Amino acid sequence: MDDVVDLLVVKVGGSLVSEKARRDHLDHDALAGYAAQIADLHAAAPGRVVLVVGGGSIGHGAVRHLDADDPLAPLPLTRATFDVKWSWVRALRDLGSRCFPVQVAAICVLGPRGPEVSFGTVRRLLDHGILPVLAGDSVLCADGALRVFGSDHVPAVAVRGTPGRTRVAVLTDVPGVLAGGPGSQEVIPEITPGSSAEAFRRIWPAAAHDTSGSMGGKLTALLDHARDGAECFVLRGDPTAPDLRFLLEGRGRWPDVPHTRIVADTTG
Amino acid sequence: MDDVVDLLVVKVGGSLVSEKARRDHLDHDALAGYAAQIADLHAAAPGRVVLVVGGGSIGHGAVRHLDADDPLAPLPLTRATFDVKWSWVRALRDLGSRCFPVQVAAICVLGPRGPEVSFGTVRRLLDHGILPVLAGDSVLCADGALRVFGSDHVPAVAVRGTPGRTRVAVLTDVPGVLAGGPGSQEVIPEITPGSSAEAFRRIWPAAAHDTSGSMGGKLTALLDHARDGAECFVLRGDPTAPDLRFLLEGRGRWPDVPHTRIVADTTG
Repeated sequence: MDDVVDLLVVKVGGSLVSEKARRDHLDHDALAGYAAQIADLHAAAPGRVVLVVGGGSIGHGAVRHLDADDPLAPLPLTRATFDVKWSWVRALRDLGSRCFPVQVAAICVLGPRGPEVSFGTVRRLLDHGILPVLAGDSVLCADGALRVFGSDHVPAVAVRGTPGRTRVAVLTDVPGVLAGGPGSQEVIPEITPGSSAEAFRRIWPAAAHDTSGSMGGKLTALLDHARDGAECFVLRGDPTAPDLRFLLEGRGRWPDVPHTRIVADTTG
Repeated sequence: MDDVVDLLVVKVGGSLVSEKARRDHLDHDALAGYAAQIADLHAAAPGRVVLVVGGGSIGHGAVRHLDADDPLAPLPLTRATFDVKWSWVRALRDLGSRCFPVQVAAICVLGPRGPEVSFGTVRRLLDHGILPVLAGDSVLCADGALRVFGSDHVPAVAVRGTPGRTRVAVLTDVPGVLAGGPGSQEVIPEITPGSSAEAFRRIWPAAAHDTSGSMGGKLTALLDHARDGAECFVLRGDPTAPDLRFLLEGRGRWPDVPHTRIVADTTG
């Protein structure tokens, strides 16, 4: 293995394990397939992998109709996404994988410059070769309100919490950021903050049932992680794929997998 | 109100809302009664109250039969006690109380000198007048194993996390530490580390179904909090009592309520 990644954050999109239009739906077969890939990655690089799981319809259902007058309205999200984390932990444990679910709202608040992270517990889990399992959450802001902190933003907990070369890989239901919008097969190979305006023009508007803002929200979050120093990828997940170990390798060694890379401008 | 307490940690014992011999039992009527008392306390002193809830049979059931060969065996406790916290949050929300459940395992690890706490999120919750709801948990130790960190120990999160005069009030099913053991009505009025050996001789052995070690474990934990500077009380909970506001007052103003006080030796 090339020594190119100190920490790999894999986010498995909710759309891969849940039909968002179905209430509290979780596809346990698909989840078991991805859990096997994550368990294998974790075995290949113990202490260097963090899992972030999308809330799918369980997460979206908890925050779809929020009372705008209640600053704590997103509260049920922390319960909903704890349940989702636990489904993953159970599947990973069944595979013999050592993992632990961490409530992001307990280790992260939102300040004027974004997430402020207490990374101590996650660091200690990693140091002992235990896979931290994170998810979106209802996170406290500086004004005392809770805000929906979607799973696309959660890699910031690792990116900001630890030094070193952090890679963020987002597995989703399309092969990358699509140049022609929905239905297109052309993937934009690379996006930087400088070229992002063009990318945003091309991508499709969020579906009404997706509180994370679909690919637009995803790209916004990944650009934030890139600005924080991470190398980010969007690629299609496949629960039957044999493994994801290439995500730990230098890109020159990857198999022929379509993807979009999101990084900060090399010129700064 | 006398200004004698900067932070009040109220622990509601699992025995008050759960029959430990009944699997996954929670008495929602009793819980609603205590929730009303806590909501009232929180309204009287917003930002100065922390709630710790006992796991009752749900917590005990999660860790009763642990595989001694599996360092992560206590893992299910973090799920079980999240469920218990959520039952309290729901009851408090129904009363209009602003509260938030915090996973202790996410903000606390166990080091050679006991709990090491990241108090930032709890501090910010308090600063915004939001009641933190904590519970026992499976907490990571320095050797990479998870350990059962029972709810009697959880007040350490607040005692160690914040400066100032912290009071810990443990509501349980007896009127204090009993001088004559089980069935006795004589309460030991005050226990210090120096006088604790005599108290331990008097109290009864743990019931087999109680993983927290009954009053012996409780007293050990409270002596730790006292050594950390807290003033601790054990007293009987009553879900029909009108309020608990006396817990915020100087002891000279308390009603005639039996209790045991646990403090550090004044001589050091």
